[in-house]
Amino acid sequence: MHPWINALSTLRAVGLAASLLLASSSAIAAEALPSWQDGPAKQRIVGFVQAVSTVGGKEYVAPAERIAVFDNDGTLWSEQPTYFQLAFALDRVKELAPAHPDWKTTQPFKAALEGDMKALAATGEKGIAELLAVTHAGMTTEEFAAIVREWVRTAKHPTLKRPYTELTYAPMRELLDYLRANGFQTWIVSGGGVEFMRVITEELYGVPPQQVVGSSIKTRYEVRNGQPAIVRLPEIDFIDDKAGKPIGIHKAIGRRPVAAFGNSDGDFEMLEWTTASPGARLGVIVHHDDAAREFAYDRSSHIGKLARGLDEAPQRGWTVVSMRNDWKTVFAPQR
Amino acid sequence: MHPWINALSTLRAVGLAASLLLASSSAIAAEALPSWQDGPAKQRIVGFVQAVSTVGGKEYVAPAERIAVFDNDGTLWSEQPTYFQLAFALDRVKELAPAHPDWKTTQPFKAALEGDMKALAATGEKGIAELLAVTHAGMTTEEFAAIVREWVRTAKHPTLKRPYTELTYAPMRELLDYLRANGFQTWIVSGGGVEFMRVITEELYGVPPQQVVGSSIKTRYEVRNGQPAIVRLPEIDFIDDKAGKPIGIHKAIGRRPVAAFGNSDGDFEMLEWTTASPGARLGVIVHHDDAAREFAYDRSSHIGKLARGLDEAPQRGWTVVSMRNDWKTVFAPQR
Repeated sequence: MHPWINALSTLRAVGLAASLLLASSSAIAAEALPSWQDGPAKQRIVGFVQAVSTVGGKEYVAPAERIAVFDNDGTLWSEQPTYFQLAFALDRVKELAPAHPDWKTTQPFKAALEGDMKALAATGEKGIAELLAVTHAGMTTEEFAAIVREWVRTAKHPTLKRPYTELTYAPMRELLDYLRANGFQTWIVSGGGVEFMRVITEELYGVPPQQVVGSSIKTRYEVRNGQPAIVRLPEIDFIDDKAGKPIGIHKAIGRRPVAAFGNSDGDFEMLEWTTASPGARLGVIVHHDDAAREFAYDRSSHIGKLARGLDEAPQRGWTVVSMRNDWKTVFAPQR
Repeated sequence: MHPWINALSTLRAVGLAASLLLASSSAIAAEALPSWQDGPAKQRIVGFVQAVSTVGGKEYVAPAERIAVFDNDGTLWSEQPTYFQLAFALDRVKELAPAHPDWKTTQPFKAALEGDMKALAATGEKGIAELLAVTHAGMTTEEFAAIVREWVRTAKHPTLKRPYTELTYAPMRELLDYLRANGFQTWIVSGGGVEFMRVITEELYGVPPQQVVGSSIKTRYEVRNGQPAIVRLPEIDFIDDKAGKPIGIHKAIGRRPVAAFGNSDGDFEMLEWTTASPGARLGVIVHHDDAAREFAYDRSSHIGKLARGLDEAPQRGWTVVSMRNDWKTVFAPQR
């Protein structure tokens, strides 16, 4: 945490007058978000945070209600050429393959082993379900976390040639810190698997496991030789995407957020649910328009498709962040 | 919060030596839990809290891992002669009855209107599901919260003749405060409906909605005249009881608790899951043995049955709290 932010929290805690905070606020914001260009996106975010956290201001929001929700894939870290969790599943198939010689000739495993994404996609929902079953189920929750932890420690992105943990966005990590320093509780609400994400969110984003909402499979409690365990089953429990996101938020948080950050139409309903309630609200879409430093995609992408969000952002008052123009740097150094 | 506890937190925050904390700890505990008799139950609880929060001690647990889970009905407030949420459902049937003249002659509504618990029980799962559908579903989540809020404000317990909000246990509320003052995150994990409980948990227990885990029904996200809403459906989503409790804990928290508090065999697996992992762990059962001040029931009760827990507590190292002998006072004044 930057010392300026720390000092600000302390001043707030002792009840300093709002006027003093406002007088020094632009300097503080500039310090807090060094990877952001000083353009309209940053100004909108900083203006919102100041409005809701200024005691006595007409848009003040009590700290307990300062809930901010963030999509993960494409919003906090990259999601191209494929979701990192799918890369994990494919690597896992390769690791398990020696014990399953039939996989060389059976779909979806053949496609997975050959890295043939077209053939994999052609296996449809049934194929994906089989892939999920062998890579994500059939072990205890603790065993699964250990497998993911080991993969994260060793795997590298296929084109950027770096560990996945170095592919988080510096501006978004600063934003998480900035929001927390201003009394927000930061949550991840993602279509990704909740138990996959929980392995990395605390270290990468400072978000503890109990503030991660995601898709899940069913589990069963059982006692094996006197030791209780939670076993992962090959059956979908909940898909935290599209209209599932406000449902997931309501299940886990029970409170409507005041700020939401996404990058694709899978986040549309989350932004809609967040920003349609009365009072100051913030909806932000990260637009991937930076082929030089990351990837450029939106309306026609097979992953992270963004069309309705771009069309409706202006009328809904949502801020579209241009990665190319609004971010001085893209990737965060590993902490 | 008691000033002594506050002072303790501050001392910890500035990194005071553990030896000083230990020297003053018995006085602090006595101050923190004034409604508890100074017997073995209190000593066990205080000893555990000191052990896990003493920096450098061999049973030290980092604050992020200090998760404590509490059952609600029968553990934090009363549950006799029937669960308070069932009393809510019955009152709700009476309120809706004028618009449904056929309910006077149709089960389960006839039984509900006449307060005939035997006849209601005889309608079985189908009857309970119908009761749930008309009293808990068919409205938005915001409408449901408003209905519960109004009921809680006005309803009174049938035999104790007091608002339900005055039937929380003073010793348990002190314990929640004491744990939080020692860096614990306190969660409610109950068979009760999560959206019912969330209306009252912050005010009564200082537990925010995002730290409440409970049973739930399915919901649907929809946009009505441009306004998004989450609508409650007449279909069970999750039952947070028995083996469902560790499952619910894992879903919501993603971390294994180090302390669990319950009162019935519905809490058995939660205590088992919590206390079977390595390190200092605390399992506590509140035993209702005080007919004079509250209610006395255990092995043969239709609600809050406690048999296996009593049998196995000694061998599992769980502490059984006698309401009669361990608590100086039972009910907490409304805050």
